[in-house]
Amino acid sequence: MVTSILLINGPNLNLLGTREPHIYGSTTLEDIEKRVQNQASDLGATLTSFQSNWEGAIVDKIQEVRGKVGGIIINAGALTHTSVAIRDALSAVAIPFIEVHISNVHKREPFRHHSYLSDKAEAVIVGLGDYGYTAAVDYLLKHYKS
Amino acid sequence: MVTSILLINGPNLNLLGTREPHIYGSTTLEDIEKRVQNQASDLGATLTSFQSNWEGAIVDKIQEVRGKVGGIIINAGALTHTSVAIRDALSAVAIPFIEVHISNVHKREPFRHHSYLSDKAEAVIVGLGDYGYTAAVDYLLKHYKS
Amino acid sequence: MVTSILLINGPNLNLLGTREPHIYGSTTLEDIEKRVQNQASDLGATLTSFQSNWEGAIVDKIQEVRGKVGGIIINAGALTHTSVAIRDALSAVAIPFIEVHISNVHKREPFRHHSYLSDKAEAVIVGLGDYGYTAAVDYLLKHYKS
Amino acid sequence: MVTSILLINGPNLNLLGTREPHIYGSTTLEDIEKRVQNQASDLGATLTSFQSNWEGAIVDKIQEVRGKVGGIIINAGALTHTSVAIRDALSAVAIPFIEVHISNVHKREPFRHHSYLSDKAEAVIVGLGDYGYTAAVDYLLKHYKS
Amino acid sequence: MVTSILLINGPNLNLLGTREPHIYGSTTLEDIEKRVQNQASDLGATLTSFQSNWEGAIVDKIQEVRGKVGGIIINAGALTHTSVAIRDALSAVAIPFIEVHISNVHKREPFRHHSYLSDKAEAVIVGLGDYGYTAAVDYLLKHYKS
Amino acid sequence: MVTSILLINGPNLNLLGTREPHIYGSTTLEDIEKRVQNQASDLGATLTSFQSNWEGAIVDKIQEVRGKVGGIIINAGALTHTSVAIRDALSAVAIPFIEVHISNVHKREPFRHHSYLSDKAEAVIVGLGDYGYTAAVDYLLKHYKS
Amino acid sequence: MVTSILLINGPNLNLLGTREPHIYGSTTLEDIEKRVQNQASDLGATLTSFQSNWEGAIVDKIQEVRGKVGGIIINAGALTHTSVAIRDALSAVAIPFIEVHISNVHKREPFRHHSYLSDKAEAVIVGLGDYGYTAAVDYLLKHYKS
Amino acid sequence: MVTSILLINGPNLNLLGTREPHIYGSTTLEDIEKRVQNQASDLGATLTSFQSNWEGAIVDKIQEVRGKVGGIIINAGALTHTSVAIRDALSAVAIPFIEVHISNVHKREPFRHHSYLSDKAEAVIVGLGDYGYTAAVDYLLKHYKS
Amino acid sequence: MVTSILLINGPNLNLLGTREPHIYGSTTLEDIEKRVQNQASDLGATLTSFQSNWEGAIVDKIQEVRGKVGGIIINAGALTHTSVAIRDALSAVAIPFIEVHISNVHKREPFRHHSYLSDKAEAVIVGLGDYGYTAAVDYLLKHYKS
Amino acid sequence: MVTSILLINGPNLNLLGTREPHIYGSTTLEDIEKRVQNQASDLGATLTSFQSNWEGAIVDKIQEVRGKVGGIIINAGALTHTSVAIRDALSAVAIPFIEVHISNVHKREPFRHHSYLSDKAEAVIVGLGDYGYTAAVDYLLKHYKS
Amino acid sequence: MVTSILLINGPNLNLLGTREPHIYGSTTLEDIEKRVQNQASDLGATLTSFQSNWEGAIVDKIQEVRGKVGGIIINAGALTHTSVAIRDALSAVAIPFIEVHISNVHKREPFRHHSYLSDKAEAVIVGLGDYGYTAAVDYLLKHYKS
Amino acid sequence: MVTSILLINGPNLNLLGTREPHIYGSTTLEDIEKRVQNQASDLGATLTSFQSNWEGAIVDKIQEVRGKVGGIIINAGALTHTSVAIRDALSAVAIPFIEVHISNVHKREPFRHHSYLSDKAEAVIVGLGDYGYTAAVDYLLKHYKS
Repeated sequence: MVTSILLINGPNLNLLGTREPHIYGSTTLEDIEKRVQNQASDLGATLTSFQSNWEGAIVDKIQEVRGKVGGIIINAGALTHTSVAIRDALSAVAIPFIEVHISNVHKREPFRHHSYLSDKAEAVIVGLGDYGYTAAVDYLLKHYKS
Repeated sequence: MVTSILLINGPNLNLLGTREPHIYGSTTLEDIEKRVQNQASDLGATLTSFQSNWEGAIVDKIQEVRGKVGGIIINAGALTHTSVAIRDALSAVAIPFIEVHISNVHKREPFRHHSYLSDKAEAVIVGLGDYGYTAAVDYLLKHYKS
Repeated sequence: MVTSILLINGPNLNLLGTREPHIYGSTTLEDIEKRVQNQASDLGATLTSFQSNWEGAIVDKIQEVRGKVGGIIINAGALTHTSVAIRDALSAVAIPFIEVHISNVHKREPFRHHSYLSDKAEAVIVGLGDYGYTAAVDYLLKHYKS
Repeated sequence: MVTSILLINGPNLNLLGTREPHIYGSTTLEDIEKRVQNQASDLGATLTSFQSNWEGAIVDKIQEVRGKVGGIIINAGALTHTSVAIRDALSAVAIPFIEVHISNVHKREPFRHHSYLSDKAEAVIVGLGDYGYTAAVDYLLKHYKS
Repeated sequence: MVTSILLINGPNLNLLGTREPHIYGSTTLEDIEKRVQNQASDLGATLTSFQSNWEGAIVDKIQEVRGKVGGIIINAGALTHTSVAIRDALSAVAIPFIEVHISNVHKREPFRHHSYLSDKAEAVIVGLGDYGYTAAVDYLLKHYKS
Repeated sequence: MVTSILLINGPNLNLLGTREPHIYGSTTLEDIEKRVQNQASDLGATLTSFQSNWEGAIVDKIQEVRGKVGGIIINAGALTHTSVAIRDALSAVAIPFIEVHISNVHKREPFRHHSYLSDKAEAVIVGLGDYGYTAAVDYLLKHYKS
Repeated sequence: MVTSILLINGPNLNLLGTREPHIYGSTTLEDIEKRVQNQASDLGATLTSFQSNWEGAIVDKIQEVRGKVGGIIINAGALTHTSVAIRDALSAVAIPFIEVHISNVHKREPFRHHSYLSDKAEAVIVGLGDYGYTAAVDYLLKHYKS
Repeated sequence: MVTSILLINGPNLNLLGTREPHIYGSTTLEDIEKRVQNQASDLGATLTSFQSNWEGAIVDKIQEVRGKVGGIIINAGALTHTSVAIRDALSAVAIPFIEVHISNVHKREPFRHHSYLSDKAEAVIVGLGDYGYTAAVDYLLKHYKS
Repeated sequence: MVTSILLINGPNLNLLGTREPHIYGSTTLEDIEKRVQNQASDLGATLTSFQSNWEGAIVDKIQEVRGKVGGIIINAGALTHTSVAIRDALSAVAIPFIEVHISNVHKREPFRHHSYLSDKAEAVIVGLGDYGYTAAVDYLLKHYKS
Repeated sequence: MVTSILLINGPNLNLLGTREPHIYGSTTLEDIEKRVQNQASDLGATLTSFQSNWEGAIVDKIQEVRGKVGGIIINAGALTHTSVAIRDALSAVAIPFIEVHISNVHKREPFRHHSYLSDKAEAVIVGLGDYGYTAAVDYLLKHYKS
Repeated sequence: MVTSILLINGPNLNLLGTREPHIYGSTTLEDIEKRVQNQASDLGATLTSFQSNWEGAIVDKIQEVRGKVGGIIINAGALTHTSVAIRDALSAVAIPFIEVHISNVHKREPFRHHSYLSDKAEAVIVGLGDYGYTAAVDYLLKHYKS
Repeated sequence: MVTSILLINGPNLNLLGTREPHIYGSTTLEDIEKRVQNQASDLGATLTSFQSNWEGAIVDKIQEVRGKVGGIIINAGALTHTSVAIRDALSAVAIPFIEVHISNVHKREPFRHHSYLSDKAEAVIVGLGDYGYTAAVDYLLKHYKS
């Protein structure tokens, strides 16, 4: 049973909610992070958040939590399609992880249809908006069996 | 706001839970259908279920609910990768739908990495086990904005 | 000289004219079928119509008319791109056939640019709207030489 | 409503009917041009014809009729598969056009399965023999709605 | 040791022997089915036959014999190249099966060179004519070791 | 009617049965060769065997039997996927041949899915174990019609 | 130091500025040609212009200026993607040339992403509008070192 | 009208002019930055420069200037071909940008022929040497119309 | 037996021998044409020559000699790789032809490895320098059997 | 100036002229070898011949003539398409060679359109029948300049 | 003669030996670095080590040693397959380098079969475990000739 | 622990050191074989050498040493890229082997970038010159653990 989670968001996701709020809504990444932190907390678990535009920082962070968290939720943003290093870090630390994308990447450019993470992930959630993070937390804390 | 949902399961999903229960568990498709029906009901909505091994039957069913349900949740099984007819039926009736796969298709044969439905779906959920159906219902009834 | 024709329409073509009439017009498949039936009749020939969302039903129907009709006009809809079985049935009964598509499939998704029927057809008509059926009938009854 | 048409035939179509008449019949391009001219005339419209083995000449001709004809019928022959210039000319003058091929190109070499014109055309007619031109004229003068 | 077999034939194989007997011979599918039934019977085993032009019907039939037959012989015809659903059904019921094709598919169109069944089959026999069925029965009843 | 057969086995097939007998069984190539020789003999025909790890030797052998045998059974082993020379030799001598593989090559590496021989063969048998040779002999001596 | 330039424009570029001026502006090709002629003149150099819809005419023109101009600026339009003859002519006369496109071809159809000229050009300028010609002239006359 | 520009140079461009000056000349990146700063200044605009070998730093910098500069000129060097994150950052801040490459990338390895930036850029300039930066500044300050 | 030949040279071959004679030698196309004319004449046959940089002109010329020459020798230069129209013209006039290239095209860019003419030609000669024309004439006049 | 030649023929070319003489004629490989030997002799040169169905033998032979012959004419038959070893041997001995094919390989299977030898050869002659050898000898002895 | 070496290890290689020591052994990256430092020292040379999970840091480091070390040994880990920037940095500083991988990458996922470094490296060593570093040092210090 | 090694060199490697010694040096294959024989001997092991230009001979040799040597070092030369038979022989005898190439194959033609041996090898060493053999021996005798 997972009782601690690391939430990772990759490049440009720090811009969520601060850009064109009349279109994308005003939910910021900070809002989302707080919400799922509360969600985890309500379920007796802990969730810490991390965002970076730097591939190296994300690799470092994943290595850092080895043996310290029970699950990872990652929206690697653009690095989803280009980073073998993050794939390898996730494999190396052997922590089960869920891949999340806010929008439906299958509606976008062809190069976004391939992910270096999906075949290593437990599950992949795309297009559920920021509810995707909620579902991932719910799954890891209530339904996941290693 | 969606208040009625059709749940569609494609070929071979009728075998869920009846085969090698010591391995796959004993949750049958019927169990899942009941559970999400209750979930919908608890949220003041209706959910009806349909399973078929026949592509034509699924196309007919989708046409039949045109104007009658607000959302579709579909696990088209093997037809995900081969049926343009189901894609066209879903487009034709213009009902928002969520694509669900119980296992993580990205860990399987290459031909399962392509779906004729994904770029038409609102969202895609893979690998969350039968919790994927629950998340899809939750999203459609509580978070979806057309 | 062809004197009897079978008109086949595949998946989702039964929805013609019943959906968003202010956009697509109100010409239904039934209207089209009647019109070309009259056209054939005026030319001293017979034309029967068949529509199904089921690949198997279309294969059965093609087999059934072996030796009974002189030509087939087929708009296989989505099955155009996925059905080797219909291709084989048409080859097996050795009835000359015309492939028709109402819209210009070349303006649509890449997978619609390939047809399993075209290289076995006498002719292919795309994008002429429902006039395409009329032209096909006209060709088979007045111009076709086996 | 289209009331004037330009008919364009590309390389080698000037040889129609003059080569091996016992095989291909003796209908020449001139015969076809006269027939569709009469057809247009009977419908109160005008149709002018043009044939060239030169890509540049066809581009010039298309530019020349800008604003002067309501529709173009084009059998670009071999240039169908190689000429972006004709595609661009047709797009530039913004005249609706029908692509016609006398034989069924899908039965021939793979490089003939791709056309630089089809996705810009209103419609594509292949394999109806020279009746294809007749159907195209009929469509443009009686059924086409811009 | 296998003692009961299901023989499945897919689309258009019902036409065997009834079409152009001066070319293809007059051996019908019924003849073949009887012959291999006798062959099985002579070896103290049972063999039942099934033919359908419908993918869904074949999937249903495969599911139906789960735990009831020891081996399947399948000539899926055109569905060989397009049906993931039949592949999945065969995998799901976990019955060893032999893939048979009457003609040598490698002499035919490129799309017939790929089969969705072969890598799941015990063995594949192509081009032995209807003797292929005989060899498959012989193998399953006399030589196969699970 | 074929009355004499050459059996050819290619590279590494001489190792059959001599390697890890607890796994692969102890049937050697020599055993197989004797068995099918007897089988042929029982049917009043002759069968001679040849094995080589050398492509050139196999080409020489095929040329040598021109006009001397009525059929060839060949398991070219690894050369199946790389030798145009054997393909050409088989075509040049115009002797009908059956391609046999002991294991199911479709379960193995992708480069084993292509054979330079299959489209020139009468038939292809894969995965029937050494019974495949028996079936091939049976077919050639009892069922093959040139 | 380059002191004389030939400016070549290919198919359909003669239409610049004469079509939908409210959208594309009213700068004609003639305007552009005059402007860069003055620009060259101000820098003590000469610039001559040539436009044709004919590949052959462009090849002839390139051959004609061999040894007579020091640089070529070419917007080959549609021929960019199809003409090996123009590539060869430019290579043969060994005059340094700049490839210019008014719009950003990378935003357009995939076949426009490949140019037969780019790897032979000194430089490529796309998407700067008609300022691209100005920059090319400026570069050749003031910055280019052979 | 753009009045402020950010100039970004990616990995290894800091080495310009300091390496093999007898071959590449002695113009350093600093020289270029000063020159275009003066150019902007002369036109009443401001230009600031940034160079980094780190993808993350470039993404951060692009986010940082959101709403603060009117245009970006970017030579992303090697990251041109691998960074979706920079593409996304440029799209997210919605600042028009010009892609510049000093050498003609089309003369180099095939993987340099694809850019993740070009279809999002206003324009692309390759092979004009460091004059490419000058032309880009000139275009943005004098000719660009948003 | 062929007694009259048309020699066709395509784009840029008119430059032979006039460019960098110290490198390529001073044999002009005119020299070659005269030499093979004499060669034909010595063998009691006639040979006429034609060179053009225009695809249309070459198509016209091929049509013009229908029924008038017994063989064609063609070095289509750059058009070899792009012209379906010349291929079609050669097929249409049904005159046997030899494809010649002076240099070895297989040592050059990949796009020169494909020819639209080769599979329609009697023979292809590459890399023999201008002796290739001599060999082609010799073959047609002394060895060719239709 | 070349004064000694090795002629190599690969697999199955030893069958020339001995198979179906009413179709292929009765010119044997021996006839050809004698003829070109005389041709060389008449020109004051020597020519020796070698044929083998074995790749290794051909490699050995090529190595053996290093420094002993001035040119090689090779028709590697099927090995043309599969042998890197022969390519490497020819490169290693650094003897100029001509690749000859009797039939036009471009009319045959796609895998025959690629040769491992062509880009290393001086020249390639296909489809001239056995005259191809004559032309190759003529070229090497009279026109080749190293 | 190389007398100073920089050893670079990329992402996740810092985890060597600290993870599952019962499986991978307990040799850490630090152990390896010390060992090869001693090896170099014994041969009268210097070796310095660098590890980073950050592409930018590796590029910086490579630039930093320009003119200061005689050779580089690099195991770029995951960046091997994605970093053009490291490739360019290595080319720019013009220091000979050896690419090392501890495991045999050819046994792993297809995307690991391509390296952006190999064609720029002096040599590539894969699968020798950490002995690969030793061999690389040995080669550079004792056998390499620039 | 490996105590006996077979060293195999494939086609054309017998030419090492005998060709252009001023360029490639005068180290012959014999020199290398002696050197590594001594190296093995010094380490208390035996090493035997084998070279052949014949694929069949190499397959035979590999089979012959089954159970007799503990490791194989193979530089298959050109056969690396074409021989499935050698791959299969190496797999069949189940002897660990190291693949060695003297030059860096990644700098050469694309077809040399694929090896049929690499994914079956323990390790691959390319570009270390003949030191590669030394390193391979060193690894097998001192570091390899089966």
